[in-house]
Amino acid sequence: MRKAKTQSPKVSLVVVGSVALDTVITPSERRSNVLGGSVSYACLAASFFSKVGMVGVIGRDFPGHGIRTYTKAGIDITGLQKADGKTFRWAGEYEADMNNRKTLSTELNVFAGFEPELPESYRNSPFLFLANISPELQIHVLSQVRKPKFVAVDTMDLWIKTAKSSLARLFNRVNLIMVNDSEARMLSGESNLARAASSILGMGPEYVIVKKGEHGAVLFSRSGRFMVPAFPVDNVLDPTGAGDTFAGGFMGFLAMSGKVDWDSLRRAMLYGSVIASFGVEAFSVERLVVLRRIEIARRLAAFERMLALPK
Amino acid sequence: MRKAKTQSPKVSLVVVGSVALDTVITPSERRSNVLGGSVSYACLAASFFSKVGMVGVIGRDFPGHGIRTYTKAGIDITGLQKADGKTFRWAGEYEADMNNRKTLSTELNVFAGFEPELPESYRNSPFLFLANISPELQIHVLSQVRKPKFVAVDTMDLWIKTAKSSLARLFNRVNLIMVNDSEARMLSGESNLARAASSILGMGPEYVIVKKGEHGAVLFSRSGRFMVPAFPVDNVLDPTGAGDTFAGGFMGFLAMSGKVDWDSLRRAMLYGSVIASFGVEAFSVERLVVLRRIEIARRLAAFERMLALPK
Repeated sequence: MRKAKTQSPKVSLVVVGSVALDTVITPSERRSNVLGGSVSYACLAASFFSKVGMVGVIGRDFPGHGIRTYTKAGIDITGLQKADGKTFRWAGEYEADMNNRKTLSTELNVFAGFEPELPESYRNSPFLFLANISPELQIHVLSQVRKPKFVAVDTMDLWIKTAKSSLARLFNRVNLIMVNDSEARMLSGESNLARAASSILGMGPEYVIVKKGEHGAVLFSRSGRFMVPAFPVDNVLDPTGAGDTFAGGFMGFLAMSGKVDWDSLRRAMLYGSVIASFGVEAFSVERLVVLRRIEIARRLAAFERMLALPK
Repeated sequence: MRKAKTQSPKVSLVVVGSVALDTVITPSERRSNVLGGSVSYACLAASFFSKVGMVGVIGRDFPGHGIRTYTKAGIDITGLQKADGKTFRWAGEYEADMNNRKTLSTELNVFAGFEPELPESYRNSPFLFLANISPELQIHVLSQVRKPKFVAVDTMDLWIKTAKSSLARLFNRVNLIMVNDSEARMLSGESNLARAASSILGMGPEYVIVKKGEHGAVLFSRSGRFMVPAFPVDNVLDPTGAGDTFAGGFMGFLAMSGKVDWDSLRRAMLYGSVIASFGVEAFSVERLVVLRRIEIARRLAAFERMLALPK
């Protein structure tokens, strides 16, 4: 009995991606070596809804408070590898219009030799989110999960340009492709987003989500679509990781519900949007770390009031 | 009896604005001297829902087919003045990204001396849309309507820069201000749209609509907001007049419903979006001229399916 009580719940969502120490410059502020990377944002967002297993790599310089940030949120870090060398570093600068940013530097460091291996306790996870890493590594991770119920994948311009055949093999094996609008256009060669989404659906997945930053996101299936504007945020401090936060909230909610029907996917879109809207209110993952469930519930209710169709 | 039968219905919406002959250059095509101007788009859009009275001015060169376009749509043109000189002309060119355009030339011609006078048959109209002309002229028109139930006004950067005190007097007397996102920012001095809308609500009106082009529109009141994405159009041929088409559809629907409660305003947002989405599918007003009510109803139903919240 005692043992059952203290046993942690089984991982229902596995997320693989990058752990980074970011330097972020906005028009108002500059922060160095703050916690970042797709897997940090996605796992913290998902942790509000379900037991998440993290797969990533950190260097010897990774700060203890970073680890504590994950574990305090209840994230399972059995799959977080520690390697000799420095943690992956990214630096970026936002323009006055924060929709535009330029990457100042990328140091792969330990991420260059990353070979994701899933702990046994992750291999029966029903939900899997393959955040942006090379499609070869994404396929490698996917192959380690025994019978995934629902797999979502993100990618980036680099892989679309350099690894299209690996992407094609991967896309054939996943349920959902999640990309931003420029990636959707690049993947499909279509400038119109609806045509781009149709073309991507033709690559294999049942669903495509096109993320449009402050303009929201659209979920496409072969028979319909669901459009969600971004929840309006009064003061965006740092948009870094918003797409990964959305994805994490989306997948975390799905994993909690255990269902993958159209209604659940649409509800997951709302939760993803709400969590992402909190994330951009502070630098790095600072807002996610102090976010309370009651705040999520209140903002979701406010969001639904803004979107509800007239009678 | 016979007289009653042939009597045309009373004007329930008056629209004042510009009538123009436009030259429009898009990445794919160039059209010269096509029908344009805010009042053309807004009246044609509104004509699907209610009896509209047009107030504007044309020159001696205005083509007969332009007039027939209005009258065939059932628009009352008693308030359309004919003046000595040439019709207002505007020329603009769109970039590959059709969100960006530059004005190539503006020839005011007869519009320079425009003094809008409302025919007696317009002066009891319950609904009034003051499309973009100088705020002094907008006030002049407003003063001629006896007891308007609901007045909406549009404006532009020029008047925000040069006629702020007239705008302030006008805004105190209207129910709704309809502006695009950059105008909302300029009017309020706030870069955040929600704060911009709050600031504009402080200028007097009960409602503000911020139009965001392909990203939809947001309706703000003091107690809530309603966000509508743009209806996704496969192939945008000419975005000219989309904002006026939206406004015309919005006001035409309200005038038909006769109600100005929150539910009716939200429904009007959907109709405005749907009509505007048709408008951009062809050059000038060409799509609006052949548009059928059944197409509007079908697209509205499809739109509602894309926006309906999950259960």
